[in-house]
Amino acid sequence: MHSRIFPIVLLTDFGYRDPFVGIMKGVIAAIAPQTPVIDLTHGIRPQDIFQGAFVLRRSMDYFPRGTVFCAVVDPGVGTARRPLGIKTRDFYFVGPDNGLLWPAAAANGIESCVCLENSEYFLRHVSHTFHGRDIFAPISARLSLGIRLEILGSEVSTPVSLEFPEPEPQGDALVLTVMDQDRFGNLTLNLSLEAFKGFSGMSFYLGFKGRAVRTFHQTYGQADDSRPFVLPGSSGFIEVAVKNGSAARDLGADVMDRFLLKRLK
Amino acid sequence: MHSRIFPIVLLTDFGYRDPFVGIMKGVIAAIAPQTPVIDLTHGIRPQDIFQGAFVLRRSMDYFPRGTVFCAVVDPGVGTARRPLGIKTRDFYFVGPDNGLLWPAAAANGIESCVCLENSEYFLRHVSHTFHGRDIFAPISARLSLGIRLEILGSEVSTPVSLEFPEPEPQGDALVLTVMDQDRFGNLTLNLSLEAFKGFSGMSFYLGFKGRAVRTFHQTYGQADDSRPFVLPGSSGFIEVAVKNGSAARDLGADVMDRFLLKRLK
Amino acid sequence: MHSRIFPIVLLTDFGYRDPFVGIMKGVIAAIAPQTPVIDLTHGIRPQDIFQGAFVLRRSMDYFPRGTVFCAVVDPGVGTARRPLGIKTRDFYFVGPDNGLLWPAAAANGIESCVCLENSEYFLRHVSHTFHGRDIFAPISARLSLGIRLEILGSEVSTPVSLEFPEPEPQGDALVLTVMDQDRFGNLTLNLSLEAFKGFSGMSFYLGFKGRAVRTFHQTYGQADDSRPFVLPGSSGFIEVAVKNGSAARDLGADVMDRFLLKRLK
Repeated sequence: MHSRIFPIVLLTDFGYRDPFVGIMKGVIAAIAPQTPVIDLTHGIRPQDIFQGAFVLRRSMDYFPRGTVFCAVVDPGVGTARRPLGIKTRDFYFVGPDNGLLWPAAAANGIESCVCLENSEYFLRHVSHTFHGRDIFAPISARLSLGIRLEILGSEVSTPVSLEFPEPEPQGDALVLTVMDQDRFGNLTLNLSLEAFKGFSGMSFYLGFKGRAVRTFHQTYGQADDSRPFVLPGSSGFIEVAVKNGSAARDLGADVMDRFLLKRLK
Repeated sequence: MHSRIFPIVLLTDFGYRDPFVGIMKGVIAAIAPQTPVIDLTHGIRPQDIFQGAFVLRRSMDYFPRGTVFCAVVDPGVGTARRPLGIKTRDFYFVGPDNGLLWPAAAANGIESCVCLENSEYFLRHVSHTFHGRDIFAPISARLSLGIRLEILGSEVSTPVSLEFPEPEPQGDALVLTVMDQDRFGNLTLNLSLEAFKGFSGMSFYLGFKGRAVRTFHQTYGQADDSRPFVLPGSSGFIEVAVKNGSAARDLGADVMDRFLLKRLK
Repeated sequence: MHSRIFPIVLLTDFGYRDPFVGIMKGVIAAIAPQTPVIDLTHGIRPQDIFQGAFVLRRSMDYFPRGTVFCAVVDPGVGTARRPLGIKTRDFYFVGPDNGLLWPAAAANGIESCVCLENSEYFLRHVSHTFHGRDIFAPISARLSLGIRLEILGSEVSTPVSLEFPEPEPQGDALVLTVMDQDRFGNLTLNLSLEAFKGFSGMSFYLGFKGRAVRTFHQTYGQADDSRPFVLPGSSGFIEVAVKNGSAARDLGADVMDRFLLKRLK
């Protein structure tokens, strides 16, 4: 046990109109009334494990050491898919074994991974359809209070992994993938700011469905018209943006779509 | 007075784009800065007392003893409808006297119910249109700090009640009502899992507008195609669901619509 | 330093589907784990500084003394626009120097206003596109812990101001402007309840695009049909509302539209 209480951070695809998230907070409050609960987001697209994994990975580093991430995007709820608890160098992760937790946990360094089996730490009645409430919330609450992971179940040696796509070389070009699309219509591509440096200093061509993006700006304010441009995104990847508009709408692009990036002579 | 501070749980139809909920939290923070405030949901459809009552009833049992539920779905705000404070076996309920609080409070056992009259515990200026801010938030804050209900007003013997529809026998069939529809398009029907057991073991027919639902699955994962099926819902009622889809959209069904359930020979 | 911890109140145009707000809360939790964080709203329309300023101004007075308002509607992020910290009589305000903070801060009485320059209190890496996370969240966290504003940067004598439109006399009539539109479709006009008193006692005409509003009701409940009426809004201004409907939809009116108010003989 430790004296400081660690926050629980929730990420789900439950949205905001239903009481699901509120009920999970009720379960947590009943077990760990002093534990602060932070909503990372509940706006993950229904059952989009990939988006959930990407959002968790890019957000993780901004939370304090000891944070318990409770993530629920869980199309396989109630089936044989395992419920997991993972201890990493700095954090705990709780959620379904479907790849959702993998990129974040692996990046932070997995120290221990267990299948949540010890039902004495669950709610008394476990439903087939809402493990967020019945398993993941109560386990997260107990981890925030300092319970040891080993008590909760037996070791899992090979959790389901999920790898983000890498930029793919194609001749002297790179094929890039849209990883996320935000409220402002900005498109996050899977190319790090570091890797883009070789392109931003010279002329480049970023193509999608016959459209071309050819300019790079450090900020929205520097863009001087409403054409799409490349922006250094806040998550460490490049983004495609439109000033006072939506690059997603303008280009007709969505998550998993692919762009072609070329240097120009 | 008691030493432990009880949480306040908010349920409203205020949505998320306006500052109404945030303002209520400001009022609470000014009176009871240590009280944790939990959002159950603010996505109740505007002025839908029935949906608010159902969501409150199905969520209540997951919150700790002592919780103050502050619920505001209040088309009659500013009229003669009374503002209520209710003490039940385990909880407090605060909100308008329009049936919203009734199913939850009655199920938990009403011990005392008062009309909130003592304006010294309200905000100084009470508007005609925002009692959530002016009456219900400050009263909830004070109840979380341990004020006695009797101080707040005089006893109400007959608060407005609201009864949920029961399954209606029709020959050897049952007419069921849609109680709620969630983000995933799942439809909650007013038949308990217990009551459905007599049907799920054999062939059944659940009809709506010429469409038939004939299969039962314990989980989404067991469904093998995109036809609607019956699922044991997490709130203790059966639900109609579509794997990776929306039963509400697929069937064109909404809250208060009625299904017919028959046993087949 | 003081012994009581002050809450941080967040207002942004970040919406609810992305992790931006959650990440800001992570930054705050890492610096000031005991500080309560309250969401005022994240539903400000993208880059609508005017709406953000109005919502902040009308909400401010309901929060406790010492509150740190962290407001981010920031189309100029990463450009030369200054990041500000403002101390007023009762509050702190943190956000971009684009007028967003001005009406609220000026109304409360500005005591000190600094340009946030001392990067030792920022996150280590400051992006060009997310100062909410990199500057405003960490500065707000430190202000909630009692750091003195003067340490954070040098005095700004003329922050960017933003004035709300006043009612404009036109002959014996007044031209009013729509300041806000809420979830229920109510339209807030820039005329105080006090100023409207001269009209509500007699016949009046409130016109918009050939439509006329001629009735005043204290509450929704008093309206007896579905025609738009004038209501005393909870923010101290008059509103145009439709019972069980939307005045915005019914009239086709939106923020910044103008109504004409006349006394009738």
